[in-house]
Amino acid sequence: MDTAMNYERAKQWILAEDRFTPESLGKCESVMCLGNGYMGLRSALEEEYVNEKRDLFIAGTFNKFDESEVTELPNAADVTSMELHLKSERFSLESGRIENYERFLNLKTGELVRNVIWISPRGKRVRLTFKRIVSMKRMHVIAQQVSITPLNRDMKIRLRTGIDGQVTNSGAQHFSEGEKRFYDHKYMQYVSRTTESGITFVTNSAVKREGFGSGEEGRIGMGRRHVYCDYEWDAAMDETVTFEKISNVHTLRDLEHAGRTVQELQEESVRELQEALKCGYDILARESAAAWEEKVWSRARISIDSENELDELAVRFAQYHMAVMTPAHDERMNIGAKGLSGEGYKGHTFWDADIFVLPYFTFTFPETARKLVKYRYLTLPGAHKKAQENGYAGAQFPWESAWYDDGEVTPAFGDVDIVTGRPQTIWSGKIEQHITSDVVFAMWQYYQAAGDQAFMDDYGYELLFDTAVFWASRLEYSADDGKYHINNVIGPDEYKEHVNDNAYTNYMAWWNLNKAVSCYEELSEEKPGLLGKLSEKLNLESYYEKWRELAGKIYLPQPGADLVIPQDASYLTLEDIDLTKYKEQEEVLLIYRDYNAEQINKLQVSKQADIMILFYLLENYFTDEVKKANWNYYEPRTLHDSSLSLSTHCILANDIGDRDMAYSLYQKSLNIDMGPFMKSSDGGIHSASIGGIWQSVVFGFGGVRVLEGNLRIRPSLPKKWRKLSFHLNWHGQDLFFTVTKESVKIENRTRVKAADIEIAGKVYQVFDEIEVSTER
Amino acid sequence: MDTAMNYERAKQWILAEDRFTPESLGKCESVMCLGNGYMGLRSALEEEYVNEKRDLFIAGTFNKFDESEVTELPNAADVTSMELHLKSERFSLESGRIENYERFLNLKTGELVRNVIWISPRGKRVRLTFKRIVSMKRMHVIAQQVSITPLNRDMKIRLRTGIDGQVTNSGAQHFSEGEKRFYDHKYMQYVSRTTESGITFVTNSAVKREGFGSGEEGRIGMGRRHVYCDYEWDAAMDETVTFEKISNVHTLRDLEHAGRTVQELQEESVRELQEALKCGYDILARESAAAWEEKVWSRARISIDSENELDELAVRFAQYHMAVMTPAHDERMNIGAKGLSGEGYKGHTFWDADIFVLPYFTFTFPETARKLVKYRYLTLPGAHKKAQENGYAGAQFPWESAWYDDGEVTPAFGDVDIVTGRPQTIWSGKIEQHITSDVVFAMWQYYQAAGDQAFMDDYGYELLFDTAVFWASRLEYSADDGKYHINNVIGPDEYKEHVNDNAYTNYMAWWNLNKAVSCYEELSEEKPGLLGKLSEKLNLESYYEKWRELAGKIYLPQPGADLVIPQDASYLTLEDIDLTKYKEQEEVLLIYRDYNAEQINKLQVSKQADIMILFYLLENYFTDEVKKANWNYYEPRTLHDSSLSLSTHCILANDIGDRDMAYSLYQKSLNIDMGPFMKSSDGGIHSASIGGIWQSVVFGFGGVRVLEGNLRIRPSLPKKWRKLSFHLNWHGQDLFFTVTKESVKIENRTRVKAADIEIAGKVYQVFDEIEVSTER
Repeated sequence: MDTAMNYERAKQWILAEDRFTPESLGKCESVMCLGNGYMGLRSALEEEYVNEKRDLFIAGTFNKFDESEVTELPNAADVTSMELHLKSERFSLESGRIENYERFLNLKTGELVRNVIWISPRGKRVRLTFKRIVSMKRMHVIAQQVSITPLNRDMKIRLRTGIDGQVTNSGAQHFSEGEKRFYDHKYMQYVSRTTESGITFVTNSAVKREGFGSGEEGRIGMGRRHVYCDYEWDAAMDETVTFEKISNVHTLRDLEHAGRTVQELQEESVRELQEALKCGYDILARESAAAWEEKVWSRARISIDSENELDELAVRFAQYHMAVMTPAHDERMNIGAKGLSGEGYKGHTFWDADIFVLPYFTFTFPETARKLVKYRYLTLPGAHKKAQENGYAGAQFPWESAWYDDGEVTPAFGDVDIVTGRPQTIWSGKIEQHITSDVVFAMWQYYQAAGDQAFMDDYGYELLFDTAVFWASRLEYSADDGKYHINNVIGPDEYKEHVNDNAYTNYMAWWNLNKAVSCYEELSEEKPGLLGKLSEKLNLESYYEKWRELAGKIYLPQPGADLVIPQDASYLTLEDIDLTKYKEQEEVLLIYRDYNAEQINKLQVSKQADIMILFYLLENYFTDEVKKANWNYYEPRTLHDSSLSLSTHCILANDIGDRDMAYSLYQKSLNIDMGPFMKSSDGGIHSASIGGIWQSVVFGFGGVRVLEGNLRIRPSLPKKWRKLSFHLNWHGQDLFFTVTKESVKIENRTRVKAADIEIAGKVYQVFDEIEVSTER
Repeated sequence: MDTAMNYERAKQWILAEDRFTPESLGKCESVMCLGNGYMGLRSALEEEYVNEKRDLFIAGTFNKFDESEVTELPNAADVTSMELHLKSERFSLESGRIENYERFLNLKTGELVRNVIWISPRGKRVRLTFKRIVSMKRMHVIAQQVSITPLNRDMKIRLRTGIDGQVTNSGAQHFSEGEKRFYDHKYMQYVSRTTESGITFVTNSAVKREGFGSGEEGRIGMGRRHVYCDYEWDAAMDETVTFEKISNVHTLRDLEHAGRTVQELQEESVRELQEALKCGYDILARESAAAWEEKVWSRARISIDSENELDELAVRFAQYHMAVMTPAHDERMNIGAKGLSGEGYKGHTFWDADIFVLPYFTFTFPETARKLVKYRYLTLPGAHKKAQENGYAGAQFPWESAWYDDGEVTPAFGDVDIVTGRPQTIWSGKIEQHITSDVVFAMWQYYQAAGDQAFMDDYGYELLFDTAVFWASRLEYSADDGKYHINNVIGPDEYKEHVNDNAYTNYMAWWNLNKAVSCYEELSEEKPGLLGKLSEKLNLESYYEKWRELAGKIYLPQPGADLVIPQDASYLTLEDIDLTKYKEQEEVLLIYRDYNAEQINKLQVSKQADIMILFYLLENYFTDEVKKANWNYYEPRTLHDSSLSLSTHCILANDIGDRDMAYSLYQKSLNIDMGPFMKSSDGGIHSASIGGIWQSVVFGFGGVRVLEGNLRIRPSLPKKWRKLSFHLNWHGQDLFFTVTKESVKIENRTRVKAADIEIAGKVYQVFDEIEVSTER
């Protein structure tokens, strides 16, 4: 099976689909989704299809259906649907004949355009053009335009469009029926409230038409959870009628509406809509494109001069989606594992956000990164609660996190267990504990890159100490070896449940404790007042000594004679099976068709990077020989059944000097969302993979790394690449890198202070611009 | 617009559709729906379509989404859907080409069959046959069969089918996510609970296949609210593979499961499914057809020898649907205004049930009628509550009624008000008060027909007195004329809101009071003990005198000089407008596009029969001249925008001797559900209209009436009819009538006692058989 993605016409900015394939509806809805961080709108077509998923998410508006489920981002009332009839024939590309079809998302402007020439089953030929944006300028506004031209005869055309609150999250309805009304027979309004979290949503829509002889208005109507207008006209051959539909969505959870009443919001949002309608589609689209340029591309545009144009398109695709998915406007929410592009993972935040996506913001948009890290600080009460419930102290971060004060929201059950016939238990929420050090690691990276001491003083140290308190309570002393262990966990490789001494988990806990020790020492010398305040708040009295002891005695799995580090205490003793069947398939999670979780647990098979991600984050602690040996051991046993896996391996392949392998893994990682497999992205794009594409480019091929607080660049361009340029923000300086096979050029575009950068073992102070040869 | 209904091949039992028209999906789902009174299954096609409404209702399992809505029958998990792929092409009649299509519902056997030859867009030609029943024998069982034959090449075929709990009531989800599981990799189970009423549903499904070489099983899978099996096979040209899917649904509200635990129900229902699966489709279909014959047709078959075959089909269509919609198994529920065939009116019971549908059961299946009347007795606590809340005494029945102890459940708002742009207020729940006497009238009719004195003693008298108490508290004395009035009501004609002295309401209240007076007198003579008990229970002490006084002084609108009885105090003074535009259209409620309720209230326009239904129920109180004068006045002003209107007018046209008009109204009334207008039945069939078809035949053309406790027959066959035969159950005797233009033949098939029947002014005692000439 193959999607109709057309990258021929890519031209670096255009994601195009050049034929209509019902099988890839879901994929295109996800990969072509629109948004601005406040909202995410799946690109379901205007006319409805079986198996479509028409979703609109407003970041942070979580709701829980009932006590048997966990909270999720609810699917807000739809405004995009347009039911079009040529007399009695409903326009649908599944019927009749398609003479022309193209759809393209312009990543630069955020505009989605579709051109169709369709011949109805009864022979009516019509040209249709659909355009759509979610405004990057007015964060509540969605604008659509549709142009209709009969091509072979006059015809009667009917159009119904409105606000449809019948949509659900795959059957879960999160809203009350709500209030429907029209203002001036023109402005449709739908007001509804989430059932559990009680968030009021106000959705408005209005239509304006051009090309009509008469000034006739649409006929207004209401149905259950539905308010709409019907238009009907005699369309003349070769004459184009254009409809513009402008809509907006506001909620009382929005910071800007704090303290407002529902009625105030109703009135204000209608006023906003009236203004937007006055502008019309073209102006709204233009100003939104300008906002994309100003907010995103002028600050972060990456260029790759490659024999394969897809390489550049992919990283821009990643940047586009990171802008769409990230709620940069509100620190009470974070990035979902599927962004705002689908119902998968319910809008929840995992370590994907901290380890895979956050670095892009840390190194490009530090003001946004600050908010994303601050979110974790705001979730501390939930982390305390989780630790307490599990019998620990301090802050244990939720495996899945939603609204900042929701705490742990991992669901209890997943897909079918093929042995028992019942749903599998999801253990991550209970025992996948590395998330706690991941959060601290990502925060520390932000601190180092941004040099944001105020953040550390206000929030960072507290987060660090609080998590160290958790680890101190979590470690288990064994009299057998006099070491501290972490038993019964899941590491990054989720195919291994209930393991002891997972290498990644132990090393990262050790790093977390060590960092607490060194910061404690530093503060006690330099900021005793702050330390005193924190000690009081967190009861740190005796912790410093304890942390020192634990950090010294935590069990850290060491390389064996063959230099292989055991992923956990039992992995190397498990049965090895032939994985060819699964490695060769592009479809993921196939192994669940043959084994249940308990059985997979007994095989030397990994879902994803585990030791590799450890090497990536703590690269200084392992030698190149150890890295290579482990690569050779683990890579063949890794199915890459998680979207978090390929980019890590890509970066590691660069580290161990295998450029071809790195490039080939980059190609594979692009395919996770942009590739031909049609079902991969139905539930939404993979935000960790998206972040990983950027990391593969900048950290992998660009060779950028922060080690002990220092910025280093050691590029290693793939054979097909001639040039790579990107931005990095380091201590407030916007550094623009141009990397070729021969040299690295760095411009400091901020020029407020010099940036220290290590290139090929030497540190340069870059105040304005330098170029360093990297030829050997 | 025209549906593809084909009555050519009707042959008295077959409702057929001979081409696929997406526009009439909803209509066919309703008019071809299957059921057995326990459940109603809309006939959505196996493959899914945009704009389909795939509903399965279990009678009486009401649930309320939240406090802002009223309770409704929830849409239970779907088992009918089958997604079929020929390689990557999804089978859908909207794509590719249809070479052959026919679908027919056999009213006699309750089986729905569809034959299709389809050519996929890429040229694969395949024959498909789908069959389906809801068992009339095993009330929890649904059986399906699909046969698939490649006709022009070998092809890979995939089929997914399971239990889908993602369905909603137009967006309102009434169930928790629930529990999913497989037994033996074969029996799928989905257990969910209604969110507010807490009713546990257990749905099971299993598939068996024939025609496969291998014994390969389907692959099991789970998704959100979804459990399913995937089948994939290489289908050889000209070889037929047949799947049978057997499913069942049980709930803990079912009487038979009283006291059971969820686990017991899970196990027992799987056992039932295993047995049914062993039988297989053909046996299940045969035994269900036999049950239809035994339970329905052998006792109630109506034959009409007419030049127009549709006349007979229509009355059987009505009988079929009354069997499907009526929960004869459980007196805690009643008949919905849309039966169990759609979401319209939310499964609620209106006066439609008592006045329009109940008579069929009263005169044909008295044991079922008894339960339906008993239901009203069980709802007395809700009726007391409603009276109290409105400041009255006694029992005021809810305008809309659901589960027996729900009380009033009329929603507060309806469709858009085209003037204000807001939803219209629905006033019926507050002021449409005639329902209270309607209930008593229908109960009285049952008592008279069945002669069920035990019912009267146990429940009937209490119901009668309790409602008379209500009317006594409701009447308003006016010193101006020394009369009692009923102000601010809605009569049957719902286009007139807030009127005073609605003729129908006043006369029926008077009838209710009079009946209480006469029964009181009778009991005080014959059953003083019973009367004493009732007096104590209802505090009747002083009521007898009061009822007498009120019955004597209630204002009863009288014919004027032109013999026209004012429908209410103001109707005759309102503005007359030209109604041609609305009278000529088959679409109903068109007037709301031009006027809002307040404006319609000021026009001489009626939605439906008002004075006419009064003449019909209390025919002895009005002269033929008065009837004719009022017919001539009101019929032209009546838009028949309610499905309750045409059959009443049909009967009245017979009464006033206009046979052609009667027959033409009969034809029109058939069209309400069976007719060509495609959107009329989307929300379900119209149970009052369905009951009205039977009444038009038996009470209209058959001329059957009960007057002062006596059975009378005065037939008046339409010109096109040669013979009409029907059953009537009178005082326990099954009387079989054969009516021609020349005579009436009556067989008493029970022959236990003689039945007194008045024909042409003379009373005959029918013990075995008589034939009376009716020629004049």
